[in-house]
Amino acid sequence: MTLDVGFIGYGFMGTAHANALARLPMFFPETPQVNRSIIVGREKKALTDAADRLGFDRTTTDWEDAVESVDVLYNLAPTHLHPEPTIEALAAGVHVLCEKPLARSLEGAERMVEAARLSDAVAGCAYNYRYVPALQLAKQLVDKGALGELRYFRGQFLQDWQADEDGPWLWRNNDDVAGAGAVGDQGSHTIDLAQWLVGDIADVSGRLATEIEERSVPESDERRAVTNDDIYTVHFSFQSGTQGMLEGSRIAVGHKNTNAVELIGSNGAIQFDCERLNELQVQFEDDYGFQTINVTRDEDPYMDAWWPAGHSIGWEHTVIHENHEFLRAVDGATSFEPSFKTAFQTQRVVDAIRRSDKTGKRVSL
Amino acid sequence: MTLDVGFIGYGFMGTAHANALARLPMFFPETPQVNRSIIVGREKKALTDAADRLGFDRTTTDWEDAVESVDVLYNLAPTHLHPEPTIEALAAGVHVLCEKPLARSLEGAERMVEAARLSDAVAGCAYNYRYVPALQLAKQLVDKGALGELRYFRGQFLQDWQADEDGPWLWRNNDDVAGAGAVGDQGSHTIDLAQWLVGDIADVSGRLATEIEERSVPESDERRAVTNDDIYTVHFSFQSGTQGMLEGSRIAVGHKNTNAVELIGSNGAIQFDCERLNELQVQFEDDYGFQTINVTRDEDPYMDAWWPAGHSIGWEHTVIHENHEFLRAVDGATSFEPSFKTAFQTQRVVDAIRRSDKTGKRVSL
Amino acid sequence: MTLDVGFIGYGFMGTAHANALARLPMFFPETPQVNRSIIVGREKKALTDAADRLGFDRTTTDWEDAVESVDVLYNLAPTHLHPEPTIEALAAGVHVLCEKPLARSLEGAERMVEAARLSDAVAGCAYNYRYVPALQLAKQLVDKGALGELRYFRGQFLQDWQADEDGPWLWRNNDDVAGAGAVGDQGSHTIDLAQWLVGDIADVSGRLATEIEERSVPESDERRAVTNDDIYTVHFSFQSGTQGMLEGSRIAVGHKNTNAVELIGSNGAIQFDCERLNELQVQFEDDYGFQTINVTRDEDPYMDAWWPAGHSIGWEHTVIHENHEFLRAVDGATSFEPSFKTAFQTQRVVDAIRRSDKTGKRVSL
Amino acid sequence: MTLDVGFIGYGFMGTAHANALARLPMFFPETPQVNRSIIVGREKKALTDAADRLGFDRTTTDWEDAVESVDVLYNLAPTHLHPEPTIEALAAGVHVLCEKPLARSLEGAERMVEAARLSDAVAGCAYNYRYVPALQLAKQLVDKGALGELRYFRGQFLQDWQADEDGPWLWRNNDDVAGAGAVGDQGSHTIDLAQWLVGDIADVSGRLATEIEERSVPESDERRAVTNDDIYTVHFSFQSGTQGMLEGSRIAVGHKNTNAVELIGSNGAIQFDCERLNELQVQFEDDYGFQTINVTRDEDPYMDAWWPAGHSIGWEHTVIHENHEFLRAVDGATSFEPSFKTAFQTQRVVDAIRRSDKTGKRVSL
Repeated sequence: MTLDVGFIGYGFMGTAHANALARLPMFFPETPQVNRSIIVGREKKALTDAADRLGFDRTTTDWEDAVESVDVLYNLAPTHLHPEPTIEALAAGVHVLCEKPLARSLEGAERMVEAARLSDAVAGCAYNYRYVPALQLAKQLVDKGALGELRYFRGQFLQDWQADEDGPWLWRNNDDVAGAGAVGDQGSHTIDLAQWLVGDIADVSGRLATEIEERSVPESDERRAVTNDDIYTVHFSFQSGTQGMLEGSRIAVGHKNTNAVELIGSNGAIQFDCERLNELQVQFEDDYGFQTINVTRDEDPYMDAWWPAGHSIGWEHTVIHENHEFLRAVDGATSFEPSFKTAFQTQRVVDAIRRSDKTGKRVSL
Repeated sequence: MTLDVGFIGYGFMGTAHANALARLPMFFPETPQVNRSIIVGREKKALTDAADRLGFDRTTTDWEDAVESVDVLYNLAPTHLHPEPTIEALAAGVHVLCEKPLARSLEGAERMVEAARLSDAVAGCAYNYRYVPALQLAKQLVDKGALGELRYFRGQFLQDWQADEDGPWLWRNNDDVAGAGAVGDQGSHTIDLAQWLVGDIADVSGRLATEIEERSVPESDERRAVTNDDIYTVHFSFQSGTQGMLEGSRIAVGHKNTNAVELIGSNGAIQFDCERLNELQVQFEDDYGFQTINVTRDEDPYMDAWWPAGHSIGWEHTVIHENHEFLRAVDGATSFEPSFKTAFQTQRVVDAIRRSDKTGKRVSL
Repeated sequence: MTLDVGFIGYGFMGTAHANALARLPMFFPETPQVNRSIIVGREKKALTDAADRLGFDRTTTDWEDAVESVDVLYNLAPTHLHPEPTIEALAAGVHVLCEKPLARSLEGAERMVEAARLSDAVAGCAYNYRYVPALQLAKQLVDKGALGELRYFRGQFLQDWQADEDGPWLWRNNDDVAGAGAVGDQGSHTIDLAQWLVGDIADVSGRLATEIEERSVPESDERRAVTNDDIYTVHFSFQSGTQGMLEGSRIAVGHKNTNAVELIGSNGAIQFDCERLNELQVQFEDDYGFQTINVTRDEDPYMDAWWPAGHSIGWEHTVIHENHEFLRAVDGATSFEPSFKTAFQTQRVVDAIRRSDKTGKRVSL
Repeated sequence: MTLDVGFIGYGFMGTAHANALARLPMFFPETPQVNRSIIVGREKKALTDAADRLGFDRTTTDWEDAVESVDVLYNLAPTHLHPEPTIEALAAGVHVLCEKPLARSLEGAERMVEAARLSDAVAGCAYNYRYVPALQLAKQLVDKGALGELRYFRGQFLQDWQADEDGPWLWRNNDDVAGAGAVGDQGSHTIDLAQWLVGDIADVSGRLATEIEERSVPESDERRAVTNDDIYTVHFSFQSGTQGMLEGSRIAVGHKNTNAVELIGSNGAIQFDCERLNELQVQFEDDYGFQTINVTRDEDPYMDAWWPAGHSIGWEHTVIHENHEFLRAVDGATSFEPSFKTAFQTQRVVDAIRRSDKTGKRVSL
């Protein structure tokens, strides 16, 4: 059996997922076969070029066309376009992998969760950082109690991609399209990791700021307002009583991809930073300091599929692992996480942070 | 002229300050001469031993005896003993260097500030981390605009000295003696640095947690409650609009002294971590990443007094530099910072964090 | 035009090159099209499995069959099998990419260079670390004089993959098959980098040691002697007068892939370590320390083909870049380096190190 | 009993030792009492200033005056002035701590060892890096077998203090005064550490280079030749069969004090770098990577004398620890290492490196 797959979107994430599909047969031969069937977009020329480059059979400007003709839909469109095609696909029994965050508003996300609940199809949300081998190893260590009782979690996501005030206005700067800014785009990744590693968040207190207030629209004289956050800071508690903190920014000079977590327990601690994606810092119970583990050994999660120890993998491999797991779930072999329900819990935390910012009050979930 | 100096207290900080006084003549010969005159404590035997070891002329169990007989008083006692001797000394024209935080409550601190205002004597608070050469260099860079407009400050103070649940109950675990826990002891240092580097804080939202709820009293069967925080997390705004974040803990497994700050501007950024006290990370405007500066060059703050470049200094040198500056102020050559007034502003932030924690609301200063 | 490609060998490097060929169309569409045509090996079952997994049309146990039927031959066999098929292919006008080192002896390598000289086909040697973007950036910086006059080069290649004495005897432990041990396998990579970055080496003084003297043959009771080096240390001069040092080992506990170079000039310096493959440390002329550059920006070599800044690549991408360049050379667009002639100069250095070790004398090249 | 101490020399090392003597009573009260009695130098004004600053009773321009009047002599003069006063002092029963290296030539060093052999006085050579707590910890780990069988040692000593070609000509550039250049000044430290940690060196192969060939004499128009090395590279074997490598330079742009050692065994490994003097990297037998140990715990060597864990010490503390041990040996409590005999073995290695450089041959010791 070969699964026909359709993509909505063909930008950065379109390439990342197409690459993943293309590489699975060689490295994860047990993954179901897929055919890159159809790709949906608006600009015909760009779309045709993308289909050529990414290896798709045909293109369409009508997402309903895709929904009707595929087994699996990848919704990689800007966030405000997540709900409708996703809901229709799930209703038609088409499996959906939807980019994160689920939707720009809680209401849209809620409808998506409901559609997933009513469908037999698999509905997954693409929080790919779970699929970093070093973080999979971290999860194993936490689950087996290597850190003892969990006391404190910190998640950072610092990037500089919009640090230049003269850089362009983009759809991610628009609340109406993207929903939340840095906290929705970057923070949601960290919230997904936090709840995966520790458990559900119970309450949050958040602060959002927009330091660069307007930007130039490309190929135009227009200056347009930035209507969502470019810095977020949050403290929170998990239901377990573990304390937590989040910070992130898209204007953090000095940081390319400091997507970092630290988890401190009563007997140990771990640290991870995506700028050094093949490393996990672990302090085990009897250690005198953090061990720097090069997570490229055969026994490390997913690493027996790749190269001998010491030969690093890159960011894109997280998307490959994610696709592997998603397609295995489509095949019925496993369930996929984060499901829409899980991703909705992340969305609720983002929403609570935004409400907390507006009121200045701690918000319970 | 030689200044007679008296100490209240002879523990860790007593040794650190005595060492500082003993070393000034060789390395900072322009500092006024001092005589280690009298040391105040409760246990006679320990007191005599300390006087011998630290080079003091005599001892007393009565702090008023010291106040009457010295030119300069170092108040190194537990926090609840800061106000009375300090106020009496200032009223008598005796200069005071008081350990941080100023007092266990805002009310006590307020009385100390008032006493300083009415006195001609110098009143300084010993937030010594300002006197790390790397942080002095950071301050110079910020002041000359090397970072551009300041956008974001993060301060961390993670230690593990009370991470072991079986470790002893200490006066620092008692709100009645110490006031706030980790946020008062460690966080106040970071708040001092934040306001020094960026400016006054305008509002805060804080969270305190006590994860280890009781401890054993040494040499007894008693278990006693921990009545202040062992983890704190805070987000805040400066009056300038710069955003900020604080976190700290005394139970952070994996950290010996992660007393770290990061300051991100529109054109550059700095990072510092006390575990690598001789290093400053700086990204200048045209740089492609952080430069690791070994802050041991002759042109670095205070470093021409020490060794050739590359020969590191240690933690205690921050106390020596602080003593140098304080005694020069006593001599009339400079004013000393942090003054009591400055330290009071730090205390107000700690107090606002505690109130915010109780109410779950953002608190304006 | 589509090039028919044949592989001799299907292990680690077979997978790496097959992966590279499979990924070029999506990321480097200007590379000539290739067809994975035939794969050569000895064990029929394993060979068929490999052909399936790696996407080859057919298999053979006779390399002459492959030489006759392809446009391009990848010689990925153990080192002693490099000369014959390579020489025959070049004589037949078939382009050859040969794994490093060129041959197990200088004599074999010499014959290969002569075959390349007489052929119109492209003959390249797969020293892939040249194609790390961070090292390409290093080369650009050196060539534009950013380091000033070059004074010192250090190359390290420390791995632990044979540190365990109980690990198996492998063909790489056999001088008759592999030629030199760690210095041939790992050291040759570093010599290639050294001569690429600085220029030809003029003389060497080397030392080889075999600390683990025998190993167990897998699935047998036999213990077999290790007949080549597992540690090498070398000091040398370049013709330019720059000084240099090499060290490496396959039994270096603590190191997964410390394939590191440092180059110090009169005005600057660079450092690179393959364990952090996306980073280059550079001290520019007016800097106060090394800048940590995250070499993932669009302007970095090859990086515009991949992901947005901050999204790391892995080891395998070096092989993709190498294949891209090799196939462009086959297409006539460029010449490929390292050519056999260049690789022979590397081989001469390895040979000189071995002679120096035996005699205890410095050896001129 | 109070020991009268005399110093020959009052520059960098004079200050370092005077500081050490001044601090011992407070931190190592069990060390014998000393009186800083007399200081020897040539320029009267500078000498008087130094005596004031460093706390000496009186000065002299005649070293024989000092030898006659003290219990202990610190010979801190330029290297060519080590033998005569040292030999005379030892003959008179005066204890001597002599700066390293022992002498500018093997012949001078030999006479010093003979003088020490004939004297009852303690004769120590000031290789202070042995007294870094992190290296003391390393030594303990090696001695208890934590690394297993020792396979490989690397020692680096890279500094940039003479990297600037326009910097002044100094006595250290003159073979007639200093003996060997970087290899004598810096390399001898590393050789001392190597033989202390692993055992005696059996043979060496070395290379010396002088890349900056002349320098300007301060306050003059004269250009003067640099007559010793500014880069050295060495490979060698210990008598145990362990392999080793040394490199160092005083013109290494990018390095302030990379005085680093690595020791790799069959079961573990350690790394140390003086730029992070409070850290030791250790990979223990069952570890997955190096642990970063913050060597400031009470149980770490010498650290119970200083501050609570996490409060770093600096370079000068190594000299304090060294003085503590030397004076305890003078008091008869211990013997002191490195003795002259031990330091002579270091000198022999430096001499063998120089001979090897000249002949291009491996030299046995």
